[in-house]
Amino acid sequence: MRVFTSLLTPAEAQARYHAALPLRPLETESVGLDEALDRVLAGDLVAEDDLPPFDRSTVDGYAVRAADVSAAAAASPVRLSVTAEVRMGEDRALDLPGGGAVRIPTGGVLPGGADAVAMQEHVGRSGAEALISRPLHAGENVLTRGEDVRRGAVVLRAGRRLRPADLGILAGLGRVRVEVRRRPRVAVLSSGDELVPPDVTPAPGQLRDMNAAALAGLVRRAGGDPVLFPILPDDLPAVTEALRGAVARADLVTISGGSSVGERDVVVDAIAALGPPGIVVHGIAIRPGKPTLLGAAGARPVIALPGNPVSAMVIFEAFVRPLIAMLLGEPQPQRPAVRARAGRALAAPAEREDHLRVSLERRGEELWAHPLPAKSGLLTSLVHADGIVVVAAGRRVAEGETVSVELLDG
Amino acid sequence: MRVFTSLLTPAEAQARYHAALPLRPLETESVGLDEALDRVLAGDLVAEDDLPPFDRSTVDGYAVRAADVSAAAAASPVRLSVTAEVRMGEDRALDLPGGGAVRIPTGGVLPGGADAVAMQEHVGRSGAEALISRPLHAGENVLTRGEDVRRGAVVLRAGRRLRPADLGILAGLGRVRVEVRRRPRVAVLSSGDELVPPDVTPAPGQLRDMNAAALAGLVRRAGGDPVLFPILPDDLPAVTEALRGAVARADLVTISGGSSVGERDVVVDAIAALGPPGIVVHGIAIRPGKPTLLGAAGARPVIALPGNPVSAMVIFEAFVRPLIAMLLGEPQPQRPAVRARAGRALAAPAEREDHLRVSLERRGEELWAHPLPAKSGLLTSLVHADGIVVVAAGRRVAEGETVSVELLDG
Repeated sequence: MRVFTSLLTPAEAQARYHAALPLRPLETESVGLDEALDRVLAGDLVAEDDLPPFDRSTVDGYAVRAADVSAAAAASPVRLSVTAEVRMGEDRALDLPGGGAVRIPTGGVLPGGADAVAMQEHVGRSGAEALISRPLHAGENVLTRGEDVRRGAVVLRAGRRLRPADLGILAGLGRVRVEVRRRPRVAVLSSGDELVPPDVTPAPGQLRDMNAAALAGLVRRAGGDPVLFPILPDDLPAVTEALRGAVARADLVTISGGSSVGERDVVVDAIAALGPPGIVVHGIAIRPGKPTLLGAAGARPVIALPGNPVSAMVIFEAFVRPLIAMLLGEPQPQRPAVRARAGRALAAPAEREDHLRVSLERRGEELWAHPLPAKSGLLTSLVHADGIVVVAAGRRVAEGETVSVELLDG
Repeated sequence: MRVFTSLLTPAEAQARYHAALPLRPLETESVGLDEALDRVLAGDLVAEDDLPPFDRSTVDGYAVRAADVSAAAAASPVRLSVTAEVRMGEDRALDLPGGGAVRIPTGGVLPGGADAVAMQEHVGRSGAEALISRPLHAGENVLTRGEDVRRGAVVLRAGRRLRPADLGILAGLGRVRVEVRRRPRVAVLSSGDELVPPDVTPAPGQLRDMNAAALAGLVRRAGGDPVLFPILPDDLPAVTEALRGAVARADLVTISGGSSVGERDVVVDAIAALGPPGIVVHGIAIRPGKPTLLGAAGARPVIALPGNPVSAMVIFEAFVRPLIAMLLGEPQPQRPAVRARAGRALAAPAEREDHLRVSLERRGEELWAHPLPAKSGLLTSLVHADGIVVVAAGRRVAEGETVSVELLDG
């Protein structure tokens, strides 16, 4: 039986692990615009065109030279002769003669010589003349060529997870295919003699595996493809063989289970048996999740998560999600955080950083964070959680004190 | 040419539209656990089993009767004879005799008669005896049957968008298939004589359609399936026919474009031509997005969005996303919001609610919200935005004043 001695803090564990196992982004693949949402851009996206591709009006009205209407006033409107009308999508380039005006719709191509557009609400008509009753500054109601995106500019950076507006930009630039990182394949293994698959009715003393389903969901959220394996018994040869298979098939391997020290040994020994570097970190000063193991087989990360589902999910977020981000070439994940007041006093143990599940309540202008039952066996504490509060080891938070709450995605 | 008179506020427009067109959730479908992430639960989920299904130890140690060790102290440990050992997944129900102790791993089935578990770190061994050196309260280090989920309880409510932890609960309860709402099919049409598809090089005066790609991304985020149509010219018969086809194929129809009043008439007339109720709201006191039209053909919503991509996306979030939520049977969407200080003074026009794109900056403990360029033609203002600040019509916000920022999903 092994015991945990001199646990590393979460930050120390990360640093040691990343130093031992520098992960590089995966290879790239080309996807169509309709598949690009939430994929991670492989390289900087440089605009090959200006957006908009020409000077455009932003209103319905009359294209003019601002200098021609500088003296315009309600009492003494400037009269301009309307010489033409811009039609949408027309390739004929119009020119605006001095002292003239050209009727133009929103989005229309600004005629040569024009530098402003008078909104039609402010323009009177008298036969073929437009009556401009207020002055305009040059550029008013005009979007100039390249004002949104300048040709040659980096519009989106490598590592960007593509959002809906980004897809609009890509479409506008004619990028109907885009180079993104391949999704990391993340092996999800569960071990434990007591576990049965979700579609089996457990006999007395057995229970259904909850971890594979929950962790597969987290893998998808992180941008990976989960690869599920059959449940493993607490048996060294079986676990070792399954891990070898997973290492061969996946970019990153997780195995949860073996909550008790005895079973844990099976997982520990199996990871050690995979060859160097083997076990890099074993045991972390975090609650929940102390028995976490960070290991590797060659360049392939192998992470042993606690068997308890809440612990497994907290540790996934803290240690596995950052690895997936590295494989995707993304910046390290930062969940949106809000500030809230602690609904009751909180105290982390002297030697462990506490990751508390909280629900949020709005009271007028304030948010309050209420810790959910801390027994880590209670998965409903994560179902009802709005966020996580991290309390440093040994730190006390008074009731009402302000804390940062990392939001779980709704 | 039509003009906008007496615009409704966004809230009035919503209320009038929802009163005219009460939307019911779509039919349900059954999906496997591996497809259930982010799907919306069709009915309340009632637990058919207790979770955990038996009393379990939460630690490695010795199952005891708390009453037997009430006098335990470091100086005078209570000696209990170790009568058996619980093995994981074993179906043999053990019993704990009075004055005895049973060795038990984390997660093991609590023997009959036991009501607490002494952590092994606190237990000495002397031959076949366990030396308990501190008292335990009944229930200590035990997760009782049904403590996480009680049989018969509603675990997840209808309308819940399933999260990773929820999938764990479903797995634990043996629900390998789950009834969810069908994804709404949302038609995405773009109209405009100046538009070409993203894969075409625009001739002078033309530009590539950005809206379809961006709106399709928003539809997916909202939980719908986008259905894209070819770009439409500003031609009444063509637009009417395309809308009829979209109404027949989709659960909700959006058409963007026709930014100028003249073209706009084509879209307006085409929606009116679809039959009652036709146009319910035309023009809304919102910036950007004033020319928005909320209509319907029979029970099918038909929404005309502005042609400008930023306006189209802002209006989608404000008016289309709530409709998709109704079709999914979800509560109305509420984006997470943070409080931040305004980076400069803000002023909404007297007659329009302002939806400003902002980037967020952290300065020490504070967040600051910096408005991005407000010209609604600049899609990069949404690319760089972290959130939206809504300023009520006519309201002024001083520099440094605290505002609420609705976060855009990263």
